[in-house]
Amino acid sequence: MRTTVGIIGAGPAGLLLARLLHNAGIDSVVLESRDRGYVEQRQRAGILEQGTADVLRAAGAGERLDREGLRHDGIELRYDRRRHRVDFPALTGGRSVTVYAQTEVCKDLIALQLKEGGPLLFEAEALAVEGADTDHPRVRFRHDGREDVLDCAYVVGCDGFWGIARTAIPAELTRVFERTYPFGWLGILADVPPSHDELVYARHDRGFALLSMRSPSVSRLYLQVPEGTDAEAWSDDEIWAELERRFETDDDWTLERGPITQKSVTPMRSYVHEPMRHGRLFLAGDAAHIVPPTGAKGLNLAVGDVVTFARALVHQRETGSAELLDAYSRTCLRRVWQAERFSYDMTTLLHRVPGATPFEERLQMARLERIASSRAAETDLAEGYTGFPFG
Amino acid sequence: MRTTVGIIGAGPAGLLLARLLHNAGIDSVVLESRDRGYVEQRQRAGILEQGTADVLRAAGAGERLDREGLRHDGIELRYDRRRHRVDFPALTGGRSVTVYAQTEVCKDLIALQLKEGGPLLFEAEALAVEGADTDHPRVRFRHDGREDVLDCAYVVGCDGFWGIARTAIPAELTRVFERTYPFGWLGILADVPPSHDELVYARHDRGFALLSMRSPSVSRLYLQVPEGTDAEAWSDDEIWAELERRFETDDDWTLERGPITQKSVTPMRSYVHEPMRHGRLFLAGDAAHIVPPTGAKGLNLAVGDVVTFARALVHQRETGSAELLDAYSRTCLRRVWQAERFSYDMTTLLHRVPGATPFEERLQMARLERIASSRAAETDLAEGYTGFPFG
Repeated sequence: MRTTVGIIGAGPAGLLLARLLHNAGIDSVVLESRDRGYVEQRQRAGILEQGTADVLRAAGAGERLDREGLRHDGIELRYDRRRHRVDFPALTGGRSVTVYAQTEVCKDLIALQLKEGGPLLFEAEALAVEGADTDHPRVRFRHDGREDVLDCAYVVGCDGFWGIARTAIPAELTRVFERTYPFGWLGILADVPPSHDELVYARHDRGFALLSMRSPSVSRLYLQVPEGTDAEAWSDDEIWAELERRFETDDDWTLERGPITQKSVTPMRSYVHEPMRHGRLFLAGDAAHIVPPTGAKGLNLAVGDVVTFARALVHQRETGSAELLDAYSRTCLRRVWQAERFSYDMTTLLHRVPGATPFEERLQMARLERIASSRAAETDLAEGYTGFPFG
Repeated sequence: MRTTVGIIGAGPAGLLLARLLHNAGIDSVVLESRDRGYVEQRQRAGILEQGTADVLRAAGAGERLDREGLRHDGIELRYDRRRHRVDFPALTGGRSVTVYAQTEVCKDLIALQLKEGGPLLFEAEALAVEGADTDHPRVRFRHDGREDVLDCAYVVGCDGFWGIARTAIPAELTRVFERTYPFGWLGILADVPPSHDELVYARHDRGFALLSMRSPSVSRLYLQVPEGTDAEAWSDDEIWAELERRFETDDDWTLERGPITQKSVTPMRSYVHEPMRHGRLFLAGDAAHIVPPTGAKGLNLAVGDVVTFARALVHQRETGSAELLDAYSRTCLRRVWQAERFSYDMTTLLHRVPGATPFEERLQMARLERIASSRAAETDLAEGYTGFPFG
């Protein structure tokens, strides 16, 4: 097989990239190791920055998003039994975010791709990227029980943290930046209308909790738990009781319970791989960087990466200049590090860190009080949450 | 001896408090363990927040400050050979800071006190505060070779981190919050005009450096050094060479050298003692809290404490209500913790931390770039630097 851009991975990054290239008249092939059902069901993020939603719309993938997505103009911070709302449009000159699950983004993009895009191969497992530093990179992959080769002008690795694309960059050219956190998130999906119409980020002495939603009838809730926690070790009643405690307020707010339909534990990690490009191999999304979920930056970062790549390739086609392609890693990393910083700060602002000193706990409360009392500090948060500009 | 307010310590907190009380018609006695020459010479901070300068003026101690103090409308952040100026008035609605050394503040207040204030006893060493939780607290002290007792209605401990006032609060009522840093500041005074007209805070791979000044002809410069460093282990040439490296830029800025007249090493510590009041004993300034010098908050916090106490006591005299006195600790601590947070953040923003991970170093650069590119983040810093409101 032969194509201009070989894309490894049919998550939101790979699928959106295929769409952007298709719209620009550039052909691509997407290789996805899993089957379609798996890709359309795996629960991930659910918050689209303003810029992400705009890109999806411009790419022609905004129809259902506009119909079913929930526009959110703020979040609530909850601490010390108090509630503080952060008003995004008032602080950022009109920006907001949209609640629309990653699974739905993937479904929309897959449907578009199969209808009018280039080849999208499910159960096609990429085995290796070869010749990344030549003019003729290739992806070896296994599909329908046999090995094949995809000859490309460019390869983009959108194959996530556990993918193989990254390994094609020689270790001696690579720097890895990493932080793990001694806790994770126990997440549930529940068939109950969300108890608040915006996300609630709660800092509590017993640990962090997050109230979120997938739709007007489905709640998504999270509890900070020690790392290595088994989701099944928590009964539904225990989960609801713990959520109630951590969301406690001084007013009469209550948490509605409902049937829990899914339970899982997400580990927390910060990770950046530098550079994000080697020759004609480009990394995008989780293949190059991971953020802890606090602040919901993962999907939005992936979108920024593929927008940057698509622009750079179009620029090269139109002008003959590889300048933007050459700047890809540098351009993406500027935004990546702002998101890493933001995600780290949101995480440390809201979680109970085992072994934190009393001094650090007081600092945490002082940070929350600063956000609640200074428009500048609050704006800094609102700008980060609604999204840093694409590079 | 007998007085209304017994003040332990003739640093800026104790001296200003005596002045504020005198102006309100409340008598006090100040006990200072050192002699006058020592108090007037010990080098400390040199940056007055807008609010601090305003308080000194309103107290009648602003004449020389207005003549000799240097109004500063910004600072420069230097990193990665780049320079970024933070414009205080533009970001904070007109606020600025004043460079005027703590030694000069003390000289002015001592002169006023000796001229028209109540007793100010030098070489009067406070030994113990007794009966803090009674209506008749007393300070036992030694003066002129013999022990004496100062009977008071209130005692205010302005006797610094090593003072004895704090020890009169029972340990079981006390919480201490503390952080030490594995580095210190090697500070010099040099007879050379400052090489820049505003303070320069430099983050460098070799460590932090600060360019400051005492007057148009005297520079005050600092280098981050490992904790436990002996100032005498650094020759003058070594100090200048290291300063030059850390202040390096891409333009033609140069550091002027001159004779070094003083050298010393300051340790770095964050410390808060809660509560700041026990019965009729009140703690103010370093007696209750320490900040690392980055951000120059120490003197300004002390001023906030004594302003809060003086207001509360006047309120009690005028209305009979002890409400503000009872709220003293809570009121002060709100501002103290914002300053602790700010000082900690400025310190971690700019210093090289031994053992920092590569991830943490990238975060540090991302924070600097955020401040340089976001008006909100820059405003947050400018507000903190020019000072949090008095409680």
